[in-house]
Amino acid sequence: MPARTTRSPLLSITLDRHGAASLQEQLYDRIREAILNGRLKPGSRLPASRVLASELGVSRNTILGGFERLHSEGYIEGHMGAATQVSMVLPEDLLSARNRAAVHSHDTIPAGKISNLSERMGGFASHRADNSGRAFRPSLPDLREFPFQLWSRTIAKFWRNPPPDLLTSGDYAGYPPLRRSIAGYLGAVRGLNCTPEQIIITSGAQQALDLIARTVVDPGNDVWVENPGYDGLSSTLVAAGATLHHIPVDEQGLSVKYGCKVAPDAVLAAVTPSHQYPLGITMSLARRLELLDWATRQRAWILEDDYDSEFRYGGKPLSALQGLDKTAQVIYVGTFSKVLFPALRLGYMVVPDALIEPVLRLRRAIDDYPALALQPALHSFIDGGQFAAHIRRLRGLYARRQSVLVEALQNSSHGLLSAQPSEAGMHLIASLAPELGLSDVEASIRAARVGLVAQPLSGFYGAGGVKTEGLVLGYAGLNEREIEQNVKLLLTAMLAKN
Amino acid sequence: MPARTTRSPLLSITLDRHGAASLQEQLYDRIREAILNGRLKPGSRLPASRVLASELGVSRNTILGGFERLHSEGYIEGHMGAATQVSMVLPEDLLSARNRAAVHSHDTIPAGKISNLSERMGGFASHRADNSGRAFRPSLPDLREFPFQLWSRTIAKFWRNPPPDLLTSGDYAGYPPLRRSIAGYLGAVRGLNCTPEQIIITSGAQQALDLIARTVVDPGNDVWVENPGYDGLSSTLVAAGATLHHIPVDEQGLSVKYGCKVAPDAVLAAVTPSHQYPLGITMSLARRLELLDWATRQRAWILEDDYDSEFRYGGKPLSALQGLDKTAQVIYVGTFSKVLFPALRLGYMVVPDALIEPVLRLRRAIDDYPALALQPALHSFIDGGQFAAHIRRLRGLYARRQSVLVEALQNSSHGLLSAQPSEAGMHLIASLAPELGLSDVEASIRAARVGLVAQPLSGFYGAGGVKTEGLVLGYAGLNEREIEQNVKLLLTAMLAKN
Repeated sequence: MPARTTRSPLLSITLDRHGAASLQEQLYDRIREAILNGRLKPGSRLPASRVLASELGVSRNTILGGFERLHSEGYIEGHMGAATQVSMVLPEDLLSARNRAAVHSHDTIPAGKISNLSERMGGFASHRADNSGRAFRPSLPDLREFPFQLWSRTIAKFWRNPPPDLLTSGDYAGYPPLRRSIAGYLGAVRGLNCTPEQIIITSGAQQALDLIARTVVDPGNDVWVENPGYDGLSSTLVAAGATLHHIPVDEQGLSVKYGCKVAPDAVLAAVTPSHQYPLGITMSLARRLELLDWATRQRAWILEDDYDSEFRYGGKPLSALQGLDKTAQVIYVGTFSKVLFPALRLGYMVVPDALIEPVLRLRRAIDDYPALALQPALHSFIDGGQFAAHIRRLRGLYARRQSVLVEALQNSSHGLLSAQPSEAGMHLIASLAPELGLSDVEASIRAARVGLVAQPLSGFYGAGGVKTEGLVLGYAGLNEREIEQNVKLLLTAMLAKN
Repeated sequence: MPARTTRSPLLSITLDRHGAASLQEQLYDRIREAILNGRLKPGSRLPASRVLASELGVSRNTILGGFERLHSEGYIEGHMGAATQVSMVLPEDLLSARNRAAVHSHDTIPAGKISNLSERMGGFASHRADNSGRAFRPSLPDLREFPFQLWSRTIAKFWRNPPPDLLTSGDYAGYPPLRRSIAGYLGAVRGLNCTPEQIIITSGAQQALDLIARTVVDPGNDVWVENPGYDGLSSTLVAAGATLHHIPVDEQGLSVKYGCKVAPDAVLAAVTPSHQYPLGITMSLARRLELLDWATRQRAWILEDDYDSEFRYGGKPLSALQGLDKTAQVIYVGTFSKVLFPALRLGYMVVPDALIEPVLRLRRAIDDYPALALQPALHSFIDGGQFAAHIRRLRGLYARRQSVLVEALQNSSHGLLSAQPSEAGMHLIASLAPELGLSDVEASIRAARVGLVAQPLSGFYGAGGVKTEGLVLGYAGLNEREIEQNVKLLLTAMLAKN
C-alpha cells in the first residue's frame, strides 16, 4: 500500500492521496499558497514537471494540469516544462505579511528534528494581506473613532498603584472583575446563559480556539468546519491533529445533513451562527435546533465563534446559540479585536462547567495565565459604560458606511460589481459580473496593484467542491468619502488593460 | 497484553504500567497531588483498598503500601480500609491556587469527549502555593522596589497616541523595537550570539516552552529533563506528548552520561545551566561542552532556560550555553517575570534561524501574535536604561538579603536548618537536620500552618529514584527585617509540638 501522503522536498509540499481534493487540485493549492506567502519568490524556477511527477509519484499529466491552472491565473509563467517560473508581475502587495525573519530563515536546514505537527502547519502560512492598504481589509475597525485619551488615562490610573497581589500571580482564567463584566454583558446583550466562572480570558479568540481544540480533539478525530470559512480556525484545528471536513453553508447556515453524511462521528462542529464568515448568513433557528440536536445525539461539542456580533444593524437579533443549549455542549468564543482593536489580543470563551477544569489545566501548561496588562482598564471601560457607548457609536457609523458601499458600487460600477446589503458585520461580498471576464483571484491581484485589499471569496473554501466567487470588501475602517474614492479606484483597477 | 495505563474513575487517577516509578509510588504521587490541588478535599473518603485494587487491576498490597505512606506523611487518616479519608488537619494554606471555578466544575460530567491530552494533564494540577504568604515564595521579586510612577507614565505616553498600524496587526514574533532591545541586551550581558530576527516575544517563558515543545517534539519522543526540576516545564512537554526522562543533576549539572544510557535517542534536552532550578548549581564548562557535543552527534535540540540569570552576585559569570553553540541547536528562553513582575507575562526565546519559520507558523495558529499592551513601554524601559538600573539595584539588595537569610538560619536555628550561600538566584535550599525528625513534606506542612511557603525539595523530583530533602526558601521579595522575623517564625513552626 502506498503511503497516504507524498511529499516533494524540492518544493516543500505534501499531497494527501486520500484527500477530498484531487491530487491536481492539491498541487495547485499548495503551490499557490507557497507563492502567496512568499515561500516561492517571483522569478524562482519550478522543478521540471517530469522531475516533480517522479518525486511525488504521480502522473505527469497531474502536474501539467496543476501548472496549467496556475498559468492561466497568472501565478506562474513561461512554457510548460523546465522553464516554468513564478510570475515576476505578481504584485508585491498581494503577498502576505511574511516578515523578514521568515524570509531570512527560508534556506536554512534545521540542525535537529522538526515535529510532524510543525510540518503539517507548512500548508498554513498566512494568506493575510499586509498592512499597507486599509481599504478594503475585512474586520478592521476605525481607530480614528477610539477614545485614546480616556483609554490611556484609565490604563495609567491602574498602573500607578497596582495591588501587589495582582502582580505576582494570576487566575488561570483571567482577571476576575473582567470576567464578571463580560458575563454580565453577554447575558444582557447576547442572551448567554453563563456565570463569571465559565468565562476564560484568552490572548485573542485565536488562543481560545487552540485551547478548545486541544481539550476536545484527539489527532485523527473528525471535525466539521464551515465551507467557506475562516482559515485561522482551520489552522488551529489542524495543529491539534483534527481531520477537517468542510461542510457547505446554504442559505440557512451550515448543512447539518451534509455533515452527518460525510462525518457522522465528528467530535466538534465549529460554526459562526450570528454572521457566517465570510458569507454573512445568519443561521436560521431551525438549523440551530438541528445542529444542537445532532450534538446531543452524538455527544459532540459545538464551537460558536461570535466574532462580530456587536455590529447588527437591522432585523431581529437572534441571541447566541449558547443561549439555546440545554445540554452544555456549546463553547462560545468572543473577541475584543473588532470593537476595540486587534492588537489588544484579548478574547474570551464561555465553556460548559465540565470543561472549565480541563481547559484551565491545559492553560497552565501552555502559558500559565493571561497578562494583567490591559485587563483592568478593559474592565473599567466595560463597567463604566464607555464600552457600550463606543459600540453604539460605531454601530451607527458602520451601518451608514455599509449603505454607502452598496450605493457606491451601484452608482459607479454599471453592474460590474454589486453587493447586497447585510444586516450585520464589517464587510460585504461583492459579486463580479461575467462581463468583467475576471476570476476573483485575478480581480484581487488587480486590486492589489493599486494598493487595495480585496480578498477573493474562492480563497475561503476548502480544496475541491464548488466555490462561489466574489470579493470580500471590509468597510468599517473607512469613512464615507474614503469608501466612495476607493470604490472608484477599485473599478479603475478592474477595467485597466492588462 | 494488558493496557499500558490503568485508571480509577472513582479517584480520577491513571497509573502507567510501564512507567519508571512503581505502581505503588505512582498511586502515592497521584493521590498526594489530588489532595494538594484540592481535587480531594479534607475529610473526603477514599475508596476501600480492595475496591481500588480491583478497579485498577493491581494487588491490594500495592494500594495498602501507597496508603501507608500517605498516612505516615499526614495526607490521609483513619484505619486502613473503608474508613480512610483525607486528613482534616491538612492546612488550607498548603493547598494550591485552585480557583472557585475548578472546584465548582469538579463534579460535572462533560457532555462530549475530552481529549487524551487533556486527560494526561490531569496529573499536572498545579502545586503552586496560593498568594497569601509572601515568605518564602521562590522567584518572587520585591515589588516595593519597582518604579511604578515611571512605569505608568511610560505606558500612558504610548497609549495616548499609538501609531494606528501597530493596533491593527502585529509581527508574529513580537514588537520589533522590543526584539532589537532584547537582542542587544542578551549579546552584551549574557554573551548570546543572536540577531533581533531570532527573538520571539512570548506570553511569559511558559508559552515559549509550549511553542518549542510542539515544534520539535512528536508524541512518544524521548526528552531529557533535569531531576530535580521545574514542574511547569514537565507539564508543557507532557502536553506535547513527550516521554520524559528525569536525568539526575550532579555537582556539575545534568548528567549527560546518564541521559545517554537511559534515552540515547532524545530529541530535546531541557536544562537550566546558569542556575539549576531548584538546586542552584551552575553547569560546569566541561559539562556544557559534553552536552553540546551530544546534541551535535544526536542532532538533538537543547532548551536553555535562563530564568533568573540577571541575579548573579559573585564568581565568574559564565555566559549562556547559547553563546557556545556552533551548530545552531540551542533554543534559549528568558523571562521578564523575575526582574519586573510575573503578571507582566512577557518572556522571549532566541531560536536558531532554521526554527524561526516553524515556530512562527505554529504561533499564528495558536494565538496569532503577542499583545501590544506593554511591549512598547518595556522597550522604552530597556532602551532608556531604567531596566539595567533596576537590575543593578535589585542585585545589590538581593545579595544582601541572601546573606541575611544564611546568617539568620545559622544564628537562630542551632543547626536545625542551614543553607549554603549561592552565587546567584532568588532562593536557597535549607537542609533539615536529622534531629528535627521531620521529612521536608512534614516541615512544609508545618510552615504552611503559620502562613509560610516553604516548598519541599523532594516535590521537585520525578517519581522514583533518590530524592534529596530540603526546603526551598525564596528571599528576594522580603526585606532584611522580614527575613529575620520569618526565619524565627519558621523555626517555631518546626519545633512546635504537633
